[in-house]
Amino acid sequence: MPDPSPFPRTEFLERLRRTKLQMEKRGVEVLLVTDGSAIVYLTGYTGESSYVPQLLLVQADVEEPTLYLRPMDVSGVLHTGFLAADHVIGYPESYVGNPDRSPFDFMIDAIVGMRLNGKRLGLDFGAVSGTTLGRFQKAFPDGRIVDVGNLVDWVRIVKSAAEVALIRQSAAICDAAVARAAEVVRPGVRECDAVAEVTAALIRGTPEHGAHRVVNPLMPSGTKTGTAHLTWTDTPYRAGTSVNVELGAFRYRYAAAIMRTISLGRPSDRLQRLHDSTVEGLEAALTAARPGATCGAVAEAFGKVSARNGFPKESRCGYPIGIDWLEPSASLRVGDRTELVPNMTFHLMLGMWVATDFGLVFSETFRITENGSESLSKTPRRLIVVE
Amino acid sequence: MPDPSPFPRTEFLERLRRTKLQMEKRGVEVLLVTDGSAIVYLTGYTGESSYVPQLLLVQADVEEPTLYLRPMDVSGVLHTGFLAADHVIGYPESYVGNPDRSPFDFMIDAIVGMRLNGKRLGLDFGAVSGTTLGRFQKAFPDGRIVDVGNLVDWVRIVKSAAEVALIRQSAAICDAAVARAAEVVRPGVRECDAVAEVTAALIRGTPEHGAHRVVNPLMPSGTKTGTAHLTWTDTPYRAGTSVNVELGAFRYRYAAAIMRTISLGRPSDRLQRLHDSTVEGLEAALTAARPGATCGAVAEAFGKVSARNGFPKESRCGYPIGIDWLEPSASLRVGDRTELVPNMTFHLMLGMWVATDFGLVFSETFRITENGSESLSKTPRRLIVVE
Repeated sequence: MPDPSPFPRTEFLERLRRTKLQMEKRGVEVLLVTDGSAIVYLTGYTGESSYVPQLLLVQADVEEPTLYLRPMDVSGVLHTGFLAADHVIGYPESYVGNPDRSPFDFMIDAIVGMRLNGKRLGLDFGAVSGTTLGRFQKAFPDGRIVDVGNLVDWVRIVKSAAEVALIRQSAAICDAAVARAAEVVRPGVRECDAVAEVTAALIRGTPEHGAHRVVNPLMPSGTKTGTAHLTWTDTPYRAGTSVNVELGAFRYRYAAAIMRTISLGRPSDRLQRLHDSTVEGLEAALTAARPGATCGAVAEAFGKVSARNGFPKESRCGYPIGIDWLEPSASLRVGDRTELVPNMTFHLMLGMWVATDFGLVFSETFRITENGSESLSKTPRRLIVVE
Repeated sequence: MPDPSPFPRTEFLERLRRTKLQMEKRGVEVLLVTDGSAIVYLTGYTGESSYVPQLLLVQADVEEPTLYLRPMDVSGVLHTGFLAADHVIGYPESYVGNPDRSPFDFMIDAIVGMRLNGKRLGLDFGAVSGTTLGRFQKAFPDGRIVDVGNLVDWVRIVKSAAEVALIRQSAAICDAAVARAAEVVRPGVRECDAVAEVTAALIRGTPEHGAHRVVNPLMPSGTKTGTAHLTWTDTPYRAGTSVNVELGAFRYRYAAAIMRTISLGRPSDRLQRLHDSTVEGLEAALTAARPGATCGAVAEAFGKVSARNGFPKESRCGYPIGIDWLEPSASLRVGDRTELVPNMTFHLMLGMWVATDFGLVFSETFRITENGSESLSKTPRRLIVVE
């Protein structure tokens, strides 16, 4: 019954081994994982169910963790995850959408029932709501539950060969979708009609590899190229404007992302100069990205070029990319001292919103290699001009 | 420069009036709103930027609230929201992705700087992380910040005529996408290729109304019809199986949703019986849904029919639907005593996962009318059979 997994069982055991090593360093015997992406990482379960409470219980001295989630999602774990059936527990449906109790009450009772409440418990206080944290602290008072921060995000920052392979496949899907955007974004076409085609390309993928998930393309146009997170409209594109394209593609839950700018007509000098400067900065950043260098050094390399060209950038230049797109650990930000090691993967994200009504985007997904970096994006480094 | 808004300014002032009424009931003078959907509701800003900290400051004695967010998102608010420019504040980029500080530190300083820290502050403790709540409680000690719960979710449960109009448009887009699914789901077609077409239909919308946002279709097939939240694969559909289709469409951020089941070949007796029972239950639930009845009564009406037909359902029958799909307030759950009033909108969501490897889905989006209920979904109430 289970789907073929992109990972062997040994891959999950290795992820757990690295997680347990960090648990030991923080002095916790039991780790309570509530973040949806971290649960995907440690179990392989790919269901989109983290909008309701879920909890993965990792015990230092037990090989396989136990996942608590809604009964209707138990079968999804058995289809896609690596856990044995007796390590997947459904909580009663009566706890869902009920103002009088929370599924976390059930999980707390389970922890007490297993006599784990005498052990040292670790939780990411940033991955539960204030209300939920209050429930845990009441059940495990006097500091018996401690904040371990986003421990799993720091474990998953270095990818395995199998993870890199998936991200590489996702990057190829992104390339195909950018090519489709270059074909369909035209003056007079409704934005939603073009985005429909681009999104279809993001899902269809390549003949070898279809995608498994979709996230909103961001494709603001015209004066909205000065905005960072608007999606699209249902009005037609206009000649003489440009379109900022930000896309992500997913194999299983593994993302790659890409940004390119489309000019509908001959680009203005300002747009072309901003584009050329940004590509020059991207190439400098990729050259700076190598084992032993820091995340900060990558941002500095970009920033130096961009500022010299008259386009200083205050926001960061990117972030680690993997399960569910952005990983909230290191940051390609001036001052970030995280040391780069092989098979870290990043979205080098150069959003140049230089005025309220004008901007340009350019990005690629790259990995750190043994002696440098490798961009996984194969789309040509050019402004896409529709004449 | 601003986009045409689907709502006049008076609509937002009315939403704020109703919110301030609830603030008064809870005894708070200043409301701190951090939930992304609640911010969309109170400002009209439609950017997809809530993965980083944002805060809307609502003061009882000030007409327009003030929104704090990333500098790169300020222009997005000016393009799509109703707020005046001096009510949109960007926090320094150096607070983003920085382990040493949080954007909430900046917001707390702003609150203190405005001398609001002597006032009674309200916050939804369930809408911030445990870490963030700790920051607020440290800055405003001795209970000076109180938990008001998801106050805004309860305000937005009753829709305006303009909101219902958007949800109705979204429901029409859902109908178009189900029709497309019935055309493209075929034995031998890769699941990702069919989902690409269905998703394109969800974005393209109708000739009158394109969509503005997309969320993963859930389209598990075969033995995975027993799962609730898997997306799709890149393997081909097989004859003699069925496919559970769950789709949502969005006008601006307003969702409608629909579920239908496709049988690839003549349906088994078991599938047909489950389908007929579910439709019978849906019709009973819609009949029970009227002003003065409770959410619980709707669930009971469905449950009675379904259990009598041999398909007892433990999970709830749906939830309020609006901005960003599910609204976390009332619940179509046995025992929920929320009274129905006109222009509440719900997703009557009948996921019948009756075995680990077998299930069926059927749903519609409906609103409460002056004297009953109206389904906004126009797709025929039939099992879709592909012979």
